Amino acid sequence: MHAYAANDAGGSLSKIELELPPLGPNDVKIKVKFCGVCHSDLSMINNEWGASAYPLVAGHEVAGEIAEVGEKVTKHSVGDVVGLGWHAGYCETCRSCDTGDHNLCGDATPTIMQRHGGFAEYVQASETSVVALPPGLDIKSAGPMFCGGITVFNPLVQFDIKPTDKVAVIGIGGLGHLALQFLNAWGCEVTAFTSSENKADEAKKMGAHHIINSRDAKQIEAASNSFDLIISTVNVKLDWNLYLSTLQAKGRLHFVGATLEPLDIGVFSLLGGQKSVSGSPVGSPDTIKTMLDFANQHNIKPLIEVFPMSKINDAIKHVESGKARYRVVLEADF
Amino acid sequence: MHAYAANDAGGSLSKIELELPPLGPNDVKIKVKFCGVCHSDLSMINNEWGASAYPLVAGHEVAGEIAEVGEKVTKHSVGDVVGLGWHAGYCETCRSCDTGDHNLCGDATPTIMQRHGGFAEYVQASETSVVALPPGLDIKSAGPMFCGGITVFNPLVQFDIKPTDKVAVIGIGGLGHLALQFLNAWGCEVTAFTSSENKADEAKKMGAHHIINSRDAKQIEAASNSFDLIISTVNVKLDWNLYLSTLQAKGRLHFVGATLEPLDIGVFSLLGGQKSVSGSPVGSPDTIKTMLDFANQHNIKPLIEVFPMSKINDAIKHVESGKARYRVVLEADF
Repeated sequence: MHAYAANDAGGSLSKIELELPPLGPNDVKIKVKFCGVCHSDLSMINNEWGASAYPLVAGHEVAGEIAEVGEKVTKHSVGDVVGLGWHAGYCETCRSCDTGDHNLCGDATPTIMQRHGGFAEYVQASETSVVALPPGLDIKSAGPMFCGGITVFNPLVQFDIKPTDKVAVIGIGGLGHLALQFLNAWGCEVTAFTSSENKADEAKKMGAHHIINSRDAKQIEAASNSFDLIISTVNVKLDWNLYLSTLQAKGRLHFVGATLEPLDIGVFSLLGGQKSVSGSPVGSPDTIKTMLDFANQHNIKPLIEVFPMSKINDAIKHVESGKARYRVVLEADF
Repeated sequence: MHAYAANDAGGSLSKIELELPPLGPNDVKIKVKFCGVCHSDLSMINNEWGASAYPLVAGHEVAGEIAEVGEKVTKHSVGDVVGLGWHAGYCETCRSCDTGDHNLCGDATPTIMQRHGGFAEYVQASETSVVALPPGLDIKSAGPMFCGGITVFNPLVQFDIKPTDKVAVIGIGGLGHLALQFLNAWGCEVTAFTSSENKADEAKKMGAHHIINSRDAKQIEAASNSFDLIISTVNVKLDWNLYLSTLQAKGRLHFVGATLEPLDIGVFSLLGGQKSVSGSPVGSPDTIKTMLDFANQHNIKPLIEVFPMSKINDAIKHVESGKARYRVVLEADF
């Protein structure tokens, strides 16, 4: 089959031919129709985490069609329209897997580490990790739901967020713009923290009731004691103790963005109001299914810009520029 | 009435005579029988938080008898045996008060700030903040339950800790030795992190099933992926990311000790396993009542060393020396 591979860190991608390993008995082979481009793809292509092996085929926001199923597969049939996200397999034996928290499995297999992802004609994955799209869901924009979408939807399920809660989102990008839509449909009063003035109107269209300029400490201070939950999607260092002051008693500051600098949180910022700081990765297959149903019901979808996969290097440059509004999707054109 | 007051920061206490303000309609006057000495008393006496006014009468782990009630008081009667902790009143109008979380009230009145505490013949407090001792509870050791005890008991209630959970306690002192007892009675598998080898046997007697030397990184590493909850009672800086690695997926590192240095937690320490870091202050009157019933049922009490209140300066020196095993209580002898 054909795929677009990075041959070294930071280089541009080139079309290669490669053979997939034999399909395992519990695996499915997906014919890729669309695949989102996520910042983690760039991190892997550029070997930012030191975990890359070349040639590297990235892509982990796949929407496509089941082309072949392993002999023991029961969940999917050839022709099913499905998606695949960050994980292409789980150990299926640990406590997290046993309790349905596959996304917390310490031995989960990332789709694009030491194996080939979705910037390709086909991608393989364990049947557990693949989730069918509900009838009516737009396949073109479905891919980004499987990584960006589930990453911000998952905390609402995990922490039992209620429609009466007041929730803020820091950073209105690939993840944040989906978070606003989910939270609005969830019934919450939604606030967007953004440093981009020009995103304010769009953020309101996506579901934000209030906008706070994240570079204006006075605006943030004025929101003291406001939120039950803040979801941070950014990867830069902010004044986290200031953000903690905007939480109500028992509030939670939750990280889905991978800020590299330590959080330097003061215990007194947590103590008086019984506040929590936490983080989480994507979501389990069951939570992905729940999210897709909810998105379908409420017509929630990422705003995407579509590139043919043959223009993958242009697409990646566009993501790198920070100008993508809000997620780039590749359409397979092999 | 008589009381023991600090007249300046760091000075020794002296017996003074003072007049209490007129009793408010919703307040009660307690004749102090016993009063614990907590580290926060020393912080206030020494003006470590810049919030002290002299002469300062500290003491906020009071056990005594109702001597007088305000005209609107309905919860208590003269002669009732009661206790009083860190808070002597609440605003009674905020959301936290409305929902029974009085301990999170932003306008709660600390017993020993800008008012007189329990190192005295009498102490006054709002009826809401005062809780009756259940019949049979030892009055002599009851005081420390109202601050040290409730501080470590409260998280078990707040975070719905289950008897099947594995819980660790960092620091086996005034708070930690009560945490071990509560957790053992709660049904949990209990681990004590302590830097004092000589506390290991005692910690086991108090309910710890396992002991880990908190100065031995290798022992801590060996406990990787073990705990659902860690309660930190210490006020020193430890390697928090290392402790986070000992939590299972969805685990929580909870601070009740007021470490002054920022926590420098890495987002990746939280992200993969969906872990939380949090803090909380004492507990609400209702949770105090729940705790006292539970303690009475399970014969949980602080190990105390009793000093007559007239020897209060010796008692304070003993607490300052760090040699108290595990809580010092003053017996009123005016």
